Amino acid sequence: MSSFVRPDHSVASRHRESTFEPPRSWRTWLFGRWLQTADAPHQAIGKTVGLAVFASDALSSTAYATQEILIVLAVAGTAAFAYAFPISIAIVALLAIVTISYEQTIHAYPGGGGAYIVARDNLGELPAQIAGAALLMDYILTVSVSVSSGVAQIGSAFPALHEHRVALAVTLVLFVMFINLRGVKESGVVFAIPTYFFVVMMFLTVGTAFLRHFSGGLGTVPDPPALEIAEAKAIGLFLILHAFSNGTTALTGVEAISNGITAFREPRSRNAGITLIWMSLILGSLFLAITYLAHHIGAVPSEQETVISQLARTTFGGRGPLYLGAIGATTMILVMAANTAFADFPRLSALQAADGFLPRQLTYRGSRLVFSRGIAALALIACLLIAVFQASVTGLIPLYAIGVFLSFTLSQAGMTRRWWKSGRLQPGEELKEKGSTLRYEKGWAAKMVVNGFGAVSTALVTVVFCLTKFSEGAWVVILIIPTLVLLFFAIHMHYKDLAGRLSLDDFGAPARIRRHRVLLPISGVHRGTVNALRYARALSDDVTAVYVSNDSAASEAVRRKWGLWGGGIRLVMLESPYRLLIEPLLDYIKGVADHRQPNEILTIVVPQFVPRKRWHNLLHAQTAVLLRLALLFQRGIVITSVPYQVGLGESGEEI
Amino acid sequence: MSSFVRPDHSVASRHRESTFEPPRSWRTWLFGRWLQTADAPHQAIGKTVGLAVFASDALSSTAYATQEILIVLAVAGTAAFAYAFPISIAIVALLAIVTISYEQTIHAYPGGGGAYIVARDNLGELPAQIAGAALLMDYILTVSVSVSSGVAQIGSAFPALHEHRVALAVTLVLFVMFINLRGVKESGVVFAIPTYFFVVMMFLTVGTAFLRHFSGGLGTVPDPPALEIAEAKAIGLFLILHAFSNGTTALTGVEAISNGITAFREPRSRNAGITLIWMSLILGSLFLAITYLAHHIGAVPSEQETVISQLARTTFGGRGPLYLGAIGATTMILVMAANTAFADFPRLSALQAADGFLPRQLTYRGSRLVFSRGIAALALIACLLIAVFQASVTGLIPLYAIGVFLSFTLSQAGMTRRWWKSGRLQPGEELKEKGSTLRYEKGWAAKMVVNGFGAVSTALVTVVFCLTKFSEGAWVVILIIPTLVLLFFAIHMHYKDLAGRLSLDDFGAPARIRRHRVLLPISGVHRGTVNALRYARALSDDVTAVYVSNDSAASEAVRRKWGLWGGGIRLVMLESPYRLLIEPLLDYIKGVADHRQPNEILTIVVPQFVPRKRWHNLLHAQTAVLLRLALLFQRGIVITSVPYQVGLGESGEEI
Repeated sequence: MSSFVRPDHSVASRHRESTFEPPRSWRTWLFGRWLQTADAPHQAIGKTVGLAVFASDALSSTAYATQEILIVLAVAGTAAFAYAFPISIAIVALLAIVTISYEQTIHAYPGGGGAYIVARDNLGELPAQIAGAALLMDYILTVSVSVSSGVAQIGSAFPALHEHRVALAVTLVLFVMFINLRGVKESGVVFAIPTYFFVVMMFLTVGTAFLRHFSGGLGTVPDPPALEIAEAKAIGLFLILHAFSNGTTALTGVEAISNGITAFREPRSRNAGITLIWMSLILGSLFLAITYLAHHIGAVPSEQETVISQLARTTFGGRGPLYLGAIGATTMILVMAANTAFADFPRLSALQAADGFLPRQLTYRGSRLVFSRGIAALALIACLLIAVFQASVTGLIPLYAIGVFLSFTLSQAGMTRRWWKSGRLQPGEELKEKGSTLRYEKGWAAKMVVNGFGAVSTALVTVVFCLTKFSEGAWVVILIIPTLVLLFFAIHMHYKDLAGRLSLDDFGAPARIRRHRVLLPISGVHRGTVNALRYARALSDDVTAVYVSNDSAASEAVRRKWGLWGGGIRLVMLESPYRLLIEPLLDYIKGVADHRQPNEILTIVVPQFVPRKRWHNLLHAQTAVLLRLALLFQRGIVITSVPYQVGLGESGEEI
Repeated sequence: MSSFVRPDHSVASRHRESTFEPPRSWRTWLFGRWLQTADAPHQAIGKTVGLAVFASDALSSTAYATQEILIVLAVAGTAAFAYAFPISIAIVALLAIVTISYEQTIHAYPGGGGAYIVARDNLGELPAQIAGAALLMDYILTVSVSVSSGVAQIGSAFPALHEHRVALAVTLVLFVMFINLRGVKESGVVFAIPTYFFVVMMFLTVGTAFLRHFSGGLGTVPDPPALEIAEAKAIGLFLILHAFSNGTTALTGVEAISNGITAFREPRSRNAGITLIWMSLILGSLFLAITYLAHHIGAVPSEQETVISQLARTTFGGRGPLYLGAIGATTMILVMAANTAFADFPRLSALQAADGFLPRQLTYRGSRLVFSRGIAALALIACLLIAVFQASVTGLIPLYAIGVFLSFTLSQAGMTRRWWKSGRLQPGEELKEKGSTLRYEKGWAAKMVVNGFGAVSTALVTVVFCLTKFSEGAWVVILIIPTLVLLFFAIHMHYKDLAGRLSLDDFGAPARIRRHRVLLPISGVHRGTVNALRYARALSDDVTAVYVSNDSAASEAVRRKWGLWGGGIRLVMLESPYRLLIEPLLDYIKGVADHRQPNEILTIVVPQFVPRKRWHNLLHAQTAVLLRLALLFQRGIVITSVPYQVGLGESGEEI
C-alpha cells in the first residue's frame, strides 16, 4: 500500500441481497408478517379507504361545529341564532378556498407534506418549522381531545366508567396505535366501517329532516334544554367574528390528505385530490344542512344535550333505534378522528426528520412499512397529555385548532408565493425545487388571488382564535410553538454541525499509523488473560500488560504466573494505595497517551469473560464496561474487550 | 518471537506506585478523606472503643432478658417467679462457658471469623456455611429488631410518631450505616457515649436498689401493671426449659467480638479477649442483679410497662430525672445494638466472599477501609425487612436468636473437635490449618469437655427455641437458613467452575494467530469512517467494509465516496429488503465467522462518533452498542468501537 488514500473508482464493491429473513414470532402474530420495502406499492390505499383514513378528523367536526357557533351567538339572545346560517355559508366559502388551495398543493407536491413542504419551498426554513410545530402539536391534541371527548360521551351513557376515564382513554389510544402499527391499509379497512356508518347516519338524519321540513311536519325540538347565558351582549362585529372563528373548527382536518398523499395508490395526486374534494363536499353539505336545520327546529346550544342529539331526536321523533344509531355513530367518529392524526403525524415527522429537524430515527419504516416510531411517539405523548389533563375535554380544547389555522395560513401564503414565482417563468420553462417542479401556468394571477384571499382569511381566523381564547389556554400554544421551533433548530444545528465535522471536503488524508501501542489491563493470569494476550500480540509487537495491585500476596502470584505465561511481554505492577482499580488504571493510560508520538495509536485490550448465566455477572466487577465509559471521551484511544465465553472455551482454540 | 509461551521468570515486571490521588469532593466531606491501605493499623480500635462497638448488642439484652423469663413463668402463677433467679444462674453459667470458649477461639483464630472460621477449619464447608448463613441472617434481624424496638419505645413516648415509624426506623438504619461508612474508629467514638451511659445508668440503678434492699427500704413496685395470663399451667420441666431458653436471649451478641477481632489494635487477640471478658462480666452481673431485684420488688412481666421501668421506678421512687435517664439509656442502647451488627456483618460476609461463597465485591474495602459494600447491603436488606414487617417488633422477634444459638453450637462443636485434634499432636508439633496454627496444649481434654458441654447446652437451647417458637415464625428461619446455604453453594460452584475453566493447569499453549480478518460496518463515508478504516488497516491487511443498504440513492453515494476514500478496500453492499440494520449485519458476520480457518480471528471495527453533548445520543442509532450486545455470546469474535470525538477531531491527526 503506497499512500493511505488512493482514489480508485474501480474499487471492488460487491452487492448482495441479505439472506436474513425475520423469523416468525409473537410480533408476526400481533402485527402481521414483515413486509419488504418492495411491497410498498401494495400497501397504498385507494379513494374509498383513503376517505375513511383521512376524512374522519374533518367529518367529526360536523358533530360540534354548529353548536360552537350557536354558543357564541347565544349571548346576544335567540334572535341572533339567525346569523348562524350566513356565518356557515362564509365558513363553507372558506372551506372551498382552502380545499381548492390544497387540491392545487396536492398536484404541485405529489410527495406529500402539505403546509410544511409548501412553506419550506416557498417561504423558507423558519415558516416551515413553524408549520411543522403547529401541525405536530395539533395532531397530538387531536388524539387527546378526540379520544377524551369520545370517552366523555361514553361516560355520559355509563356513569360508572367516569372514574376510569383516563384508563379508558389510554386504552383507546393504544388500540388505535396498535391498529396503525399493523399498516396503513389495515387501519383504513378497520376504521372504514364506522366512518361510512357515520356518513350514512348523518345523511339519513339530514335527509329525513329536510323531507319532514318541506312536508311541513318537522316542527321544533320537543322539551329543549334550557339556554344558559352568563352575560348578555348586543350583537356586533366582534361577536360575529367570534362565532365565525368558533365555527371554523369545521375546517380542522381538511389539511390531512395533503400531508398523507404518499399513502395513496398511483396516480397519487389524482386519487388524493378526488378524495379531498369528496371529503369537502360531504363536510360542507352536512355542516350547512345541520346549521340550517338546527336554526329551524330551534335547537339550543347546551352542555346537557348536543345540537346533533336535538336534531336527531326531533327528526326521528324520539329516542328510537335511528336516534341511537346517529348518536352512536357520532361517538365513534369522535374517537376515530384520532386515526387521522395517526396517519399524518408519523408522515410529517418523518419529513421533518429527513430534513434534519427531528431525530433521524423517525424516518425508519417498521415491519409493516409504517413509520412505527412516529406512531409510538404520538401515542406516548397523547397518553401523557390525557393523564396530565385527566382526560378533560374542556381543559384541552382551548389549545386546539390554533395550530391548524396557523398551518393553513402558512400553506396558503406559500401557494400565493408559488403562483407569483410561476408567473415569472416563461411558458415551457421548468424550475426544479426541493419538493416539486415549478412550471409556468396560465391563470396564475387568479389562482394567486384565491390563495392570497385564503391566506388573509385564515390568518384573520388565527388571530381571532388567539385573542378570544388567550386566557382560556391559548397562551400555552403561543409558548409551545416557539419552544418546539427552537428545539427543531437545536436538533438541526447538531446534525448540520456533525455533518460539517464529519465531512470529507477539505479533509487531509490522515497519515498512515506508524506505531501501535497496546495496553493489556489484567486482573489475574488465567485463560481469559492468555487469550486476550494472544489477541493483543496479533495487533502489535508493542504490548504492555498492567496489573493493579492491592495485595502483595496476590501480586506475587501474578508476577510468578506472568513469568510462565506472559510470553516475555512487559508487566507493569501498579500499586494502588487507595484500593482503587479503575482510577489508577485511567491515570496510567492517560500518562501513556500523553507521551504518544504523532501517528501513534493506543489500544486498550481488556479481557472480559462472558459467564454462562446472566446472574453470574452480579458476581464480577464489570471492569471492561467501566473502562469503556471512562475512556469514551479520551481522544485517540481505542478499547477492545476480548470476550472469553467461559461456557465454550474448552479447547486451546480460543481467540 | 519463537513460540507463544516462553517460560521466563526473568520477565520484566516493573513496580510503580500509582500517582492517582482521590480528589476532594462531596464524598470527602461526607465520609472523610480517603485512607491508604497502609493506614489500616491507625484505624484499629482499643478496648474502650471496642467494648462500645461490640458490646452494645449483648448489653442491650439485659433490657429484656429478665422479662422474657418472667413471661414464661407467669403461666404457672407468681409463685413460679422464684424459679427466675436459679434459671438466671444457669444462664450465666452458660454465658461463662460460651465466653471461655470464645476467648479460646479468639486466641486460636486471631484473623477473626468466630463460628464461621471455627466450623470451617474443624467441621467442614457445610457446617461453616450454615454458621455463616445463621449469623448473617441474625445480624440483619438484629438491625431490624433493635431499631424497630427503639422506634417502638420512642413511639410510646410520642404517639404522633407512630404512623411514621417505618420512615423513622429507615432513617435510623441509614444514620447508623452512614456513621459506619465513615470508619470503624469513627463509629466507635460516636456510639461509645450512649453505650457507657447505659452501663453507668444500669449500675447506678442496680447499686441504688441493692443499697435500699439491704437497708430494708426498697419495698415492692408501687401500682404494678396487671398480670395477664392466657392459660394457667403447672410448673414442670418443659416450662422451666422454655423459661431458660427465653432467658438465653441475654447471650445474643456474645459472639460479636470473635467475628470482629481484626478491628482491634495489636496485640489483637489479647485486646479482643480482655474486651470479651469485660463484656461478659458486665452482662452477667447486670443480668443476675436485675433478675434478683425484679423478683424481690415483685415486678410483673407486662406489655404496658417493662420490668426495667418497674425496677427503676421502684428504686428511684418515682419518675424523676434518674428514672428518665435509665429509660432513655435503655432506648438508646436498643437502637445502638444495630451498630454491632454493622461492625460484624461486613467482616463476616467479606470472609465468606473471600472463600468464594458470596460475591467477591464484598471483600472490597471502601475509602475509609471498611467493607463499604457489606455495610450498604446490610442497611438495604434491613430496611426492606422493616418495610415489609412495618417496623413491628412482634412480627420480627420470633425469627431472632435461633441463628445465634445455631452458630454457638457449631462454634463450640468446632472447638471441641479442635481440642481433640490438639490432643493427637506431640508436644512441640505444629499443624498449619487454613485459619490458624494447631499446637499440642496441656489440659486439652478438660477444655474439650467444657466446649463439648457448651455445644450440647447450646444445641439444646437451639432445639427448644425451634420447638417453642416454631408456629410463631421460627419455621421461616428453618426455611431461610437452608435456602441461604444453597445460594452460597451456588455462588461457590460458579466461582469454582470459573476458576477451573480459567485455570492454566493442563492448558495447551494456544497457537499463534495466523490470519486476522477485519470487518468494518459503515453507515456512510465520513471522517469517522475514514478514521476507523485507518485503524482497521493498522490491524490487518484483510479488511472488508460492509454497508447495509436500504435506499438505492444513498447506496450509490456511499459506493462513489468509497471509491475515493476507501483506499482500495473491498466494500460489500448488503441489500436489506426488510429495512433492518443489525440483523443482516449479524447474519453476514456469522457467515464470515463460520468460514474461518483454524487460528483465524475476526475483529469487527465499528466507527462510533461521540457527540459533544449527551442528549445528542438520542439523535443517533446506537449501532455499536447493539452490535456489541448481540455478539457478546459469539465465540471468537472481537468488537472494537473506534470512537470519533466529534468536538475534538479538527485536524487530520485522529486516531
